Formats: sequence, structure tokens, C-alpha cells
Amino acid sequence: MAGSPRRTAGRRLQLPLLCLLLQGATAILFAVFVRYNHETDAALWHWHNHSNADNEFYFRYPSFQDVHTMIFVGFGFLMVFLQRYGFSSVGFTFLSAAFALQWSTLVQGFFHSFHHGHIYVGVERAALASSPLSPSPSQPPSMINADFCAGAVLISFGAILGKTGPAQLLLMALLEVVLFGLNEFVLLSLLRVKDAGGSMTIHAFGAYFGLVLSRVLYRPQLEKSKHRQGSVYHSDLFAMIGTIFLWIFWPSFNSAPTALGDGQHRSALNTYYSLTASTLSTFALSALVGRDGRLDMVHIQNAALAGGVVVGTSAEMMLTPFGALVAGFLAGTVSTLGYKFFTPTLESKLKVQDTCGVHNLHGMPGVLGALLGVLVAGLATHEAYGDGLESVFPLLAKGQRSATSQAMHQLFGLFVTLIFASVGGSLGGHLQVVPRRGWTRDACSEGGPLSLSGLDFWSSLGLLWMVFGRSLGRTQADPSWL
Amino acid sequence: MAGSPRRTAGRRLQLPLLCLLLQGATAILFAVFVRYNHETDAALWHWHNHSNADNEFYFRYPSFQDVHTMIFVGFGFLMVFLQRYGFSSVGFTFLSAAFALQWSTLVQGFFHSFHHGHIYVGVERAALASSPLSPSPSQPPSMINADFCAGAVLISFGAILGKTGPAQLLLMALLEVVLFGLNEFVLLSLLRVKDAGGSMTIHAFGAYFGLVLSRVLYRPQLEKSKHRQGSVYHSDLFAMIGTIFLWIFWPSFNSAPTALGDGQHRSALNTYYSLTASTLSTFALSALVGRDGRLDMVHIQNAALAGGVVVGTSAEMMLTPFGALVAGFLAGTVSTLGYKFFTPTLESKLKVQDTCGVHNLHGMPGVLGALLGVLVAGLATHEAYGDGLESVFPLLAKGQRSATSQAMHQLFGLFVTLIFASVGGSLGGHLQVVPRRGWTRDACSEGGPLSLSGLDFWSSLGLLWMVFGRSLGRTQADPSWL
Amino acid sequence: MAGSPRRTAGRRLQLPLLCLLLQGATAILFAVFVRYNHETDAALWHWHNHSNADNEFYFRYPSFQDVHTMIFVGFGFLMVFLQRYGFSSVGFTFLSAAFALQWSTLVQGFFHSFHHGHIYVGVERAALASSPLSPSPSQPPSMINADFCAGAVLISFGAILGKTGPAQLLLMALLEVVLFGLNEFVLLSLLRVKDAGGSMTIHAFGAYFGLVLSRVLYRPQLEKSKHRQGSVYHSDLFAMIGTIFLWIFWPSFNSAPTALGDGQHRSALNTYYSLTASTLSTFALSALVGRDGRLDMVHIQNAALAGGVVVGTSAEMMLTPFGALVAGFLAGTVSTLGYKFFTPTLESKLKVQDTCGVHNLHGMPGVLGALLGVLVAGLATHEAYGDGLESVFPLLAKGQRSATSQAMHQLFGLFVTLIFASVGGSLGGHLQVVPRRGWTRDACSEGGPLSLSGLDFWSSLGLLWMVFGRSLGRTQADPSWL
Repeated sequence: MAGSPRRTAGRRLQLPLLCLLLQGATAILFAVFVRYNHETDAALWHWHNHSNADNEFYFRYPSFQDVHTMIFVGFGFLMVFLQRYGFSSVGFTFLSAAFALQWSTLVQGFFHSFHHGHIYVGVERAALASSPLSPSPSQPPSMINADFCAGAVLISFGAILGKTGPAQLLLMALLEVVLFGLNEFVLLSLLRVKDAGGSMTIHAFGAYFGLVLSRVLYRPQLEKSKHRQGSVYHSDLFAMIGTIFLWIFWPSFNSAPTALGDGQHRSALNTYYSLTASTLSTFALSALVGRDGRLDMVHIQNAALAGGVVVGTSAEMMLTPFGALVAGFLAGTVSTLGYKFFTPTLESKLKVQDTCGVHNLHGMPGVLGALLGVLVAGLATHEAYGDGLESVFPLLAKGQRSATSQAMHQLFGLFVTLIFASVGGSLGGHLQVVPRRGWTRDACSEGGPLSLSGLDFWSSLGLLWMVFGRSLGRTQADPSWL
Repeated sequence: MAGSPRRTAGRRLQLPLLCLLLQGATAILFAVFVRYNHETDAALWHWHNHSNADNEFYFRYPSFQDVHTMIFVGFGFLMVFLQRYGFSSVGFTFLSAAFALQWSTLVQGFFHSFHHGHIYVGVERAALASSPLSPSPSQPPSMINADFCAGAVLISFGAILGKTGPAQLLLMALLEVVLFGLNEFVLLSLLRVKDAGGSMTIHAFGAYFGLVLSRVLYRPQLEKSKHRQGSVYHSDLFAMIGTIFLWIFWPSFNSAPTALGDGQHRSALNTYYSLTASTLSTFALSALVGRDGRLDMVHIQNAALAGGVVVGTSAEMMLTPFGALVAGFLAGTVSTLGYKFFTPTLESKLKVQDTCGVHNLHGMPGVLGALLGVLVAGLATHEAYGDGLESVFPLLAKGQRSATSQAMHQLFGLFVTLIFASVGGSLGGHLQVVPRRGWTRDACSEGGPLSLSGLDFWSSLGLLWMVFGRSLGRTQADPSWL
Repeated sequence: MAGSPRRTAGRRLQLPLLCLLLQGATAILFAVFVRYNHETDAALWHWHNHSNADNEFYFRYPSFQDVHTMIFVGFGFLMVFLQRYGFSSVGFTFLSAAFALQWSTLVQGFFHSFHHGHIYVGVERAALASSPLSPSPSQPPSMINADFCAGAVLISFGAILGKTGPAQLLLMALLEVVLFGLNEFVLLSLLRVKDAGGSMTIHAFGAYFGLVLSRVLYRPQLEKSKHRQGSVYHSDLFAMIGTIFLWIFWPSFNSAPTALGDGQHRSALNTYYSLTASTLSTFALSALVGRDGRLDMVHIQNAALAGGVVVGTSAEMMLTPFGALVAGFLAGTVSTLGYKFFTPTLESKLKVQDTCGVHNLHGMPGVLGALLGVLVAGLATHEAYGDGLESVFPLLAKGQRSATSQAMHQLFGLFVTLIFASVGGSLGGHLQVVPRRGWTRDACSEGGPLSLSGLDFWSSLGLLWMVFGRSLGRTQADPSWL
């Protein structure tokens, strides 16, 4: 029943060929475009006669490592709670995130920091460019931003876990990373929206991309309850490893790319308090809606983290510790109620099977976080921020925008994000699903590559070509196109 | 047998109502009192024209994150070794620690840094206040200190694991955090005792608070052996996750709040060597006293950590690497022998069921660490510390106290700690246990809220009111009461 | 069958006595030799009137903690994949690494920084000594280097896992740490070879030491398949914890001891990209050679890490991001193919039972990394490094060596390493195995100390005496022997 020998051989080669092709393509693009920036290049760093203590490495690398832990340990193990998909969760997370790191270095480089035909990389935007007075404070590609983009890919993965294989995931990442970069470029560089911890660019984008994709891949015969048969005791404990590592390092996530000094400090503090509040409200609501007042481990594992998502936009602003508590409390409440009441409806009414409940953890809290950002940006005053206004809202400090105008831009940013995510998820789903009915059953096989028609494969690769064909041509023509 | 429908409904609502009430109360108190300090506030930071590189964030945040990992990953998973309580351990640790972080921010703020009616928060005491010459070097509330306080709560939890539910734990935390703050205030601000890593304030306090509480909650029918039936293979591996994360990050724990520069460096180094020695002595003693020379995983999981506890007071002093090895060796020995010989006696003779053996890991090594602090402080000389004496023993440097006098103050600090812990644990136990016999059986139900009579509930909340009613009144009256 | 009562008692006492003896010996040597360096000593630090922000602690400690996590969490859990050896892996890793930290502090101190009869310790070489212009840039003992040495010991352990007990492991560590220090001294101080991340000194050395040892301990009756009977689902998930923590922190491993500023930054960046490439090639090759195109978890758990090993020597050099991708890709390919094709041959033809496949993860990629270092060093130019050449290749900057000469020294360093590893492993094996046949069966007993004849025991301890007897005598005679 596995098809003709020829087709079987084709399926065997799918994942290997796709990995090799993608790795070959990114390696060539790295050779042509990617260079050390002035903080990682031996000659450039010493040429400027810098003090070693000023290297951005010392201000960002500890936060980067916390983010790196969240992406690979946190997301990887959080999804292990479905007992049958333990290996898939950890393994495919590993594969698609590793690819996303390379690919987003390139994509974000083309969108944000393509200078003189090259992309300059380091742990984070160079210190020189972080000046609030620089004309274009867009974020260059960096290890931190590449990890952020991988985070969005993994959020989308959470919505379709159990319904796809590694090759499909790589193709999804190929597409999503491009749209992530495009959306981020529109928000941060064109609209000049603030979104340090990515309530919009990472959480809302990743969640709705994945949910729309899940809608397209809808399989009525998938019985969710079957995934969880047998004891899930240890699976739940493994998932708690993911939860706890996400929880403890979220302050680093939201503060990793913000302005140095008070900016990073304040972002971490706000996130810290927001998470404590979402934890309390999650326990409260979970016991309230649970059978016989019992706590549901899935709520604890996920909704307790909503406090980190909800302050993703506003953590670097003057949210106040009280504001952080209120935000976290609301996010935990909304998220827990979402698991209890909204997820079943989502599947029965809207035909969206949200395997890990990313709508509750990333979707709704992300939108809520964006709206909170609108509110807090709209309330910004020179009195509250003092000379620090330049770091947080440079356009306000320079008088080019009012607080209300900034708030409207923030709101529009959310709108743009939802559009990009929906169109992207739909595109991704249709590219993958078009020509067949047969592959879905195979998806449950642990670790095996899946049937993927030539059409999907090549049409997805066409996308790769379209983006970079133009970029390669542009290199000679106009090095300063941004 | 589950009682009348009305009582069942009451039990269902207990945990939710308590969480919501506590969260509401702390949120209101945050709104009234808690403000960003001068390192996290945009206006204040930039007003002083600081260099961003000087922000305390860069000196403390990496250590804070290590401590945060210890509290939530380390303590959470360390207690998983009891197979039936895996979810409880991780889940209740999560809940009570999250609440303790908020609550201790307030309590420590009132005790240590209530200025002009406000509590100013950041990752750690502000750089300005860390000057050894400042008149009152008490520690303001901070993310690091809040985590330390949560650590003490979790240590107490370890003594009563399996005998209580989440609502009781929250009430215990409500009380213990207040007494922790009071004890710390007496030691650090009044007695001017040194205790950076908290051998006294965290470990001995938390352990004896929990042990006295466990004594009050004594249940003869609890058969400990029943907890461990069936294979505990994976439970033990999960517990080793907790152990190893505690072990590797303990140098950060003891060095997180010490003086910058050589202080942090020396504390980390001493703790590092002390832990290696306690590991060797634990393996040696465990094999020596084990059946057929076999190692006992419970010893390895716990006693190997005693080297971190025992240098909690003295790690920042000139203990010497050799002194650290000897201290760690003794602590590992005492702790392992405690598990073998003392814990059974504790239960049979003193009716104290120490579920996780906190007396062996935190109690005895904490007292030993306090005594080691007495010894090392008593040996302090101007020759050994040079100009660094100001950072470690400011009163000695200013000639206001002799080394012997400092040692006596240290010893008195231990005495005060044991009094506070015993009275607090007894109070906590009696508040909880007074009116009933029936709830103990329910305690074993995973994650379910327990019967809790109205009396306990309201009497505990009365405490909340007493402390803050006065504080609120005092705000207008005298902003500089400390 | 367990032998006479007397012999049983002897076996019972073996591990305890060995632990106590080793701990006693190192404690005495610490008392005589080990002192705080000028960054950890209160008087010395303040005497120089340093700014606290300049303390090496702030530049190295976060990286140190990542390395510490790799050694104890990463290596410990990576080896858990053999279901029957879960406790052994984690427990014995813990014990032997804890001892190695103390012992290598002493050994490296004697070889590298024995000044005025003392060894001065801190988190890493003191800032003063890191000047590229200092005459002897050898690395003093330090917390980072001690962890590196423990890493080599654990790599060797991976080759003999399941074939030895804790007492044998301690003796192996006793010998291997000495040879590690000697080899490192020859490479770094005499040959002036660059090897920051230890492709040669840590990975190749540890792997071939262990493989030769495994050859000597060859047991034909050991059926490997028996180890894995029953479900290994959770064992594999635990092993993935090890893998992921190694993967995320490897950039810190390779950058921890490099020059400050651009050196650390560049090393971390190169390692980061190399690991993403080895992950993609591992998935590709694993699916390609797997049965029915299925992924093999053992490949994923191990070969994906080869990208970190392969840039151990060259990560601090101007490898370029493209070079890092290519190196990682090759390493992942070689490593995966090694697991598939070479490991079975190794056992059947060469009688080397490589339990964890360290030849594939550390051996071949280590050698490959050394050769890559030869290549990149040979291509070094003043143009590429600018004034940074002094930090990376001080002898080239001063004109004392040509790039080709440096490359030849690098190659000779690899040769020396392989000699030391082979002789050391052989010596270690013969010391342990000489007088008996009977102990191998006991090795499988979880956690139990093994039979060890008096001969091995005392001959191994003789080594301890030989090294330190001389050192002690030399102390008075000539304090500046290096």
C-alpha cells in the first residue's frame, strides 16, 4: 500500500534532498553576501581602536543565550506533551529552527541592512546604529533577531503539530521567514512601530500564520483524543521543562533587543512581574473551570506564559510595575478561558485544529499585547520619559510624531501583521496541500519524510529564486537601495 | 463522603478565590507603592546622564537569571523524586514562588527601602546604595532578593510536600514571606550581619520554618514508603535535572548580591570548589553507609548540594580555596549521614516527617554555614582584606566593630533566625490545622484544592491586613520611618 | 559467588576510600599551593585601585556558566540514551567531573602558572596576562579551563560507558587530567598553537584516549543490543535534553577563553552558524542512510553537535560565516556516516566498543577541526586581521613566525595530541585491567563500586605521588621554574 517502489524511493530522498538543497543555497548566498560586522571582524574592530569592554557582545550575549535556550529547549519540550509526538516535537523543532536561523540571517539582511552589497552580522545591531538619532534605526540581521524569527516559525509549527512532516516544515519555514522579514520591515522601518518583544511581529504573526495554515490542512478524521491515550505523566513533566525555561527567560526575550541601559533593565523587570501575575490568574481560572476544581496541566503549561507575550510590545515603555501585573493577569485569564472554551469551538465551528493551542498562548495575548502597546504609546509624555524618550520613541522626542500618532501607527502595525500572517498562512497551506489527499495519514509516522508532490516542492523553491534572483541582480546595480 | 454539595462547591472555589484575592491585593499595593528605581526609570536614568554600561543590569542580570533558574527549574524538579507528587512539586512550586516574588517585593520594600512613601525596584540594590560608606547599607527590594525569598518558601515546602495543597501553600507563603523579611531586616540592617548567600536567612530559616510546620501537621497514618512504589527510574532522572541545575548555578546564587568586582568573583570561586568537595564526600559516604556499598540516589540528589549551602555566609569572605574544600567536604558528610541516620529518628522520635529531607540539605548545612561565618568573620584582619575590608566588613573598616564583635553579631544572627523560623513555622501550622482532622486525606489528590476552614483563611488574611494597614497609615505620616 | 566476606568488604570500601583519599590529597595540595589571584583577592584587587567593572568576572562568568551547564547537564544527560545506564551516566559524570575540576586546577596550575610557589586561581586567565604582548601567554588554571579538562574526561567516559564503575572512572580521571595538562602545556606554551575551543586538546584528545582505553578493556561478551531492550522513548527524550543544552551553549564553549572583544564575539558567531549547518546535514544524511528514510535519534542526538567540535580551533580566526557553514556541514556529514558505517567496523574489526560513538562526535570532527585550523592559520594575512592579528596570532604579528610556519605548528600539535591520547589511553587501560578477568560482569550493576585489585589502586596512586612529590620538592628550590 506504500505505493510503487519508485514513489517510495522518491519519498525517501525528499527530506535529504531538500536539506541539502537549502543548505547549499544558503551557503552560496552566505559566501556572496554575509560578512562580519565591525564588532566581529578582527581588522575593523581594532581599526577603530575600541575598548574591548564596549563590544556589543558583553551587553547582548547573555540575553541572546537566554533567548537561544527558549527557542530550542523551551519550544522544543513544550510541545512534547502530546505523547506520540515527542520525538517529532523536539527533532523537527531542532531542524526547522536551525534552518530558520540561517535563512532569516539572509532575509533580514536584505530587508534591513544591505550596505555596499553585503550583509554585516553580529550578536545584535551594532552599537553605532543603535543611536536613537540615526536616520534609519532599522534592525540589521543578528543572532538575536534570527532566533526571534525562528520563534515565529516554531509558534506556527505548534498549530499544525501532528499534521505534517519535516520536509513540509522546512518549506513552511522557507516561506514564513520571508514574510516575517517583510512584515518586520514594514512595521519597524516604514511604520516606525515599537515592538521589542514581538507581541505583533513574533507572537501574533506566528500564531495566525499557523492557524490559517492549519485551517487549510484541516483533516476531519484526525481524532485529537487519540494522541493522548495511555499515561501522559512523563510527557507532561517533559512539557513542564519547556514551560519553566520559557517562563524564567522571558524577561531576557523582551529585553534582548531594546535600548541599552534603562531600556533593557525596565523591559526585564516588567516582564518578570507580568509573568508572576499570569501564573496566578492561570491557576485561579484553571481550578475555577476545571472538573471538580482540578487544575489542568495544559493550562499551567501554556497560559502561565501569556504574561510574557502580552508585554512584548510595551515592556520597554513606562508601563509601571502595576501595569505589568494587570496586563499579565488579563493575559493569563484570557488564555486559560481560551483553552477551555475557545479551542473546542475553533475546531468544531471554524475547522481549525490548533494542536498546541497557539491561539490561546500567542494569538490572543499577542493581539492584546499590541493593543496594550497602542495604549501605553498613546499615553507617552515628555514628563514620564524625560531624556529617555529618545531611546523609546525617537520620533516623539524629535517632535516628528505625537503620542496619539504613534499609537495609531502601532494599531495599524497590528492590522498589517494580521494581513501578512493570514495571507502567508493561506499561501503556505495551498502550496503544500494542492495536489493530493493521500499524504495525511503518513504524517503520523514518527520522523519519516512525507509524500510531497513535485509541484509543491518546485513552486516553493521558485519563491526562493524570486526573492534572491532580484537581490543578486541588485547587488551590482545599486548598493544603497535601502 | 465528599461532603455536602455546598461544601464541595466551597472547596472548588477556595484556590481560585484565594489566588484572585491575593493577586488583587498585591496589585493594589503595587499601584500605590511600587515605582521604577533610578536604573529602570527612563527619566531618572537619563537625568543623571549615566553611561549605559554602568547600569546595574549588566553586573547583576546574568547572575539573577542563574538564580531564577535555580528557583524554578532546580527546586521544582528536585522534588519530583516522589513519583506520586511530580505534578504537585513542579506545579505548586511554580504557583507559590510566583506569588512569593510579588509579595516579597512589597514586604522587603517596606522593611528595607521605603523612601518618600514609595518602594523603588530593580534587579538589585542600586549602585549608589552599594557604596560601603553609605550609612544604611540595607538591601532594597529587588528581583534577586525576591527570588531568594521564594527560595526560602520552597525549602519549607520541601518539608511538607505531600501533606498540603496549593491553597495552604499560598497561605504559608503569605506568612513566611513576612517573617523572612522581618528576620532579614533584623539581621542585615539592625545586627549588620553578613549573609550574602543566605546560610541563615534563606536555608536555616526556610528549613526550620518548614520542619516546625511539618511537626504541627504530623500525620501518623502517612506511610512514606507508599509514595515510592513502582518504578521511580524516570522520577529520579527528573530529580537529577533539578539537582544538576542547582549545583551548576549555586556559585551565582552566593555571588549575586555581594559587592561588585572581587566580591562577586571570590564568592563564585569559593562556592565552585565547595560544591566539588561536597560531591566527593557525598559519594564516599553514600557508598559507605549504603546496603552492599550501593549509592543511594536520594543522597546524590541532595547532599551533593550541601557545599553550596555551607558557604552561603562565608563565600564572600577570604575563606581561601582550601577553606572552601574543607567546608564543602564537611557539609556533604553531615548531610549524607543525616539522610541515613537522622531523618528516620526525626520521624520516629520527634514526629517530624521531613519529606524531602530539608533538614539534611538546608537545616544542618545552614547552621554549619552560619557557624563557619562566625569563624571566618572572627579571623578577619586588615592585612587579609586590605582596602577590600570596606566592601566585606564596613564596620570593621571604619573601626566601629572588632572582628570578634562581628563574629558575636553573626552568632546572634543565627540565634535570631532560629527563633523566627520556629515561631513562624509553629504559627503557620496552627493557623492551618486548628479546626479539623478531615482534610489530610484529601491532600494526596493531585492538584485539587483542599478543605480549608473559614477561620484559617480569614485569620491568615488578617495578618495581611495588620501589616499593611499600618504601612498604609504610615505612608502619609512619616515617609522616612526607616 | 560474590567472593569471600573479606573480599566483599574490600569492594564495599573501595569507592569510599578512594574518594576520601583523593579529596584529602587535593585538599592538602590546595592548602599548600592554591591562592586567590589578583581579581579574586580582596587586598590585591583593591590595592591596584581597579574599577570593579574591569574585573574579568564580568567578561567571562556568563560564558563560564554556559560551559558549566554543558559539562554537567549536557554531557550527563546526553549519555542517558542507554536505558540501563541512566543513573550511571548522570551520577558518574557528576562524580568524575567534580573530582576533575579540583585535580585539573592543581595540574594546570603546576604546568601553566606556578609563580613564587603558588597557583593563583580565578574564573579565567587574569586580564593582565591576556595581553598579546606578554612573553608567555600560557593559560593559568581557571574555572573555565578546569571545566574544559572535565569535558575531556567525560568524552573518554563516553567511549567506555557500561564497562566500568565509579572507582575506575576516578582513577582514569586522575591519569587523564595529568596527561591533558601536559598535552595542553606542550601545545599552547611550547608549540604556541591556537586551540581556543579545543578541537585538539579537548575533543581529539578525549576521544582517542577513551577509544584506546576501550580497546584495552574489550569484552567480546558484551552485547550492545541488550542495553537497549524495552522502550527507550523517555531515555531518548532525556538524551535530547543533553543534546540541546550542548548545542545552544557551544558558542560559549568556543568563545569562553578567547581574546576579549571581537575575539569572543567572532568565535561565538562562527560556532553558531557551524552548528546550524551540521544540524541540517545530520538530518539529511540520517534520513538518507536510514531504513525506509527514517531518522535515527542517535544521529540527531550526536552528529548535530559536530559543528561545534569542528570549529573548536578555527572559530576565533577569520573563518568567515561561509567557512563556518561549510565546516559544520562537513562535520555533520562525516559524523553521521561514522555512526552508520564506521562504528560497527570499529567494533568488529578493531575490537573497539565505542558505547556513545565518541569517535564520530569528538574523534573525527576533532581531527577535522585541527586540520581546518591548519588551513585557516596558513591563510592568515595582515590584511585580513589588521591590528587584531596580535590577539589571534601574536607570533605572526611580531614577525617571529610566518603563516605557513604557524600552520605547520598547528599540524604538529595535532600529531602530539594523538600520541599523548594513545599512550595515555593505553596506560590507563593496562593499569586498570592487568590482574583480573572477573570484574567485568559487575560493571553492569547500577551504581555499585567494582572490584579493583590493590595493584591497580596503588600503582595509580603512585602516579599521583610521582607528580606531586617532585612539585612539592621544587617549591622551595625554584619558584620560577616555568
